[in-house]
Amino acid sequence: MKIIRYKIGNQTEYGILEGKRVQALDGDPYPQIKKSDRTHQLNDLTLICPCTPTKIVAIGLNYHSHAKEVNLPVPKEPIMFYKPSSAIIGPEENIIYPKGSRHLDYECELGVVIKSQARQVSREEAMKYVLGYTCVNDVSARDWQKSDSQWSRAKGTDTFAPVGPCIETALNPGNVLVETYLNGELKQRASTSDLVFGVPELVSYISQFITLLTGDVIATGTPSGISSMQRGDTVEIKIENIGTLRNYVT
Amino acid sequence: MKIIRYKIGNQTEYGILEGKRVQALDGDPYPQIKKSDRTHQLNDLTLICPCTPTKIVAIGLNYHSHAKEVNLPVPKEPIMFYKPSSAIIGPEENIIYPKGSRHLDYECELGVVIKSQARQVSREEAMKYVLGYTCVNDVSARDWQKSDSQWSRAKGTDTFAPVGPCIETALNPGNVLVETYLNGELKQRASTSDLVFGVPELVSYISQFITLLTGDVIATGTPSGISSMQRGDTVEIKIENIGTLRNYVT
Repeated sequence: MKIIRYKIGNQTEYGILEGKRVQALDGDPYPQIKKSDRTHQLNDLTLICPCTPTKIVAIGLNYHSHAKEVNLPVPKEPIMFYKPSSAIIGPEENIIYPKGSRHLDYECELGVVIKSQARQVSREEAMKYVLGYTCVNDVSARDWQKSDSQWSRAKGTDTFAPVGPCIETALNPGNVLVETYLNGELKQRASTSDLVFGVPELVSYISQFITLLTGDVIATGTPSGISSMQRGDTVEIKIENIGTLRNYVT
Repeated sequence: MKIIRYKIGNQTEYGILEGKRVQALDGDPYPQIKKSDRTHQLNDLTLICPCTPTKIVAIGLNYHSHAKEVNLPVPKEPIMFYKPSSAIIGPEENIIYPKGSRHLDYECELGVVIKSQARQVSREEAMKYVLGYTCVNDVSARDWQKSDSQWSRAKGTDTFAPVGPCIETALNPGNVLVETYLNGELKQRASTSDLVFGVPELVSYISQFITLLTGDVIATGTPSGISSMQRGDTVEIKIENIGTLRNYVT
């Protein structure tokens, strides 16, 4: 099932995508999906980020291929950092190239959307806390990532967290293709089977320290093939069975 | 004026502290304080974090005395990191010493509470976006801070962000005493006149990159005198004209 979130008039609403038709929900999809009797046409709606994270917990160096590409050892424990909610944008929105940076990279990532509060959960129980999966572009100012000891600015600047277009609830997160297209050209392509730490491990590991809340997102890391974006570029993160998250660099 | 937030029965409410008497507010204090006709006795209330941050933006190495103590150069630009909202606790709550760490430090810090959305504001305009000031304990697992490249776990683990007891709206943030007492013994004492980057500079600098939202907190860094806490300890952060934030390590 594909859950979307959208603006309709002055309202914000969740819905289920069924082809070009949208079945509106009553309230949010937590803890259970309640369909309303309202339907819309997808074309009449403006999609926004499909969840409302209090934080994005992102993981660094979590593909074997990417660790090899940047010539760093595969981490023994997940490397965690935060992307604040103020950095989130939805599908079709603009990524603003910030003043003072000269090196802005895309990073395609499988996003995990948390269903209910997860605190110190085991690997075995972890998947009970997952609502579904979405696309994340972990936009990174690589020059700031090198100059600053902490990645707060490099990874957390406004518009650096495109998320969407939907939450797919039926997905095997251990084996889907994750891709980036820049101006239509394929730049990154990998299967999540190359992940160093898989989804159950990540949910469990993070929750040992940091409580994950309903709607929070884990960005599971990016594979090899990273490179830069320029103003005017169109960047698309495409994940098999989820869809395509398209944004414009301005 | 001292703004507090508290639980009363099953409700959460904001109020103004007037000695031992509390004047309840209608709704939250943004954008304007609206007094209700309800009053309470302070003793009947359980204080909680006086604001509801979407994030805490914390600043590293922001006192000349602390930079000297740890033998590092004074930064040319503020060093930013995030403490997620899931780490926040209120006055009198327990700081949980996490499994796997063996070195937990206190850090007394002046907290700045944001009044309204601040995006790319100038130094001159910055103070318009500040509601007031509170005490923050930037609890830090120093061993994890050394072992992890990013401070997400070291600074962002659950209960690592005590905030309170109130928001003082009338304060000169450039010259107040900030102190830590551990089991009643004075451990840190400095004036905010020793800050490398003052409050207007910090609000302006952060907002060039990261939008600050209503209720967000900036933790302005800690002076010299950091040391460890043990299970069973009582830690108090005291700031002149604000009050004392007391927590217990368990």
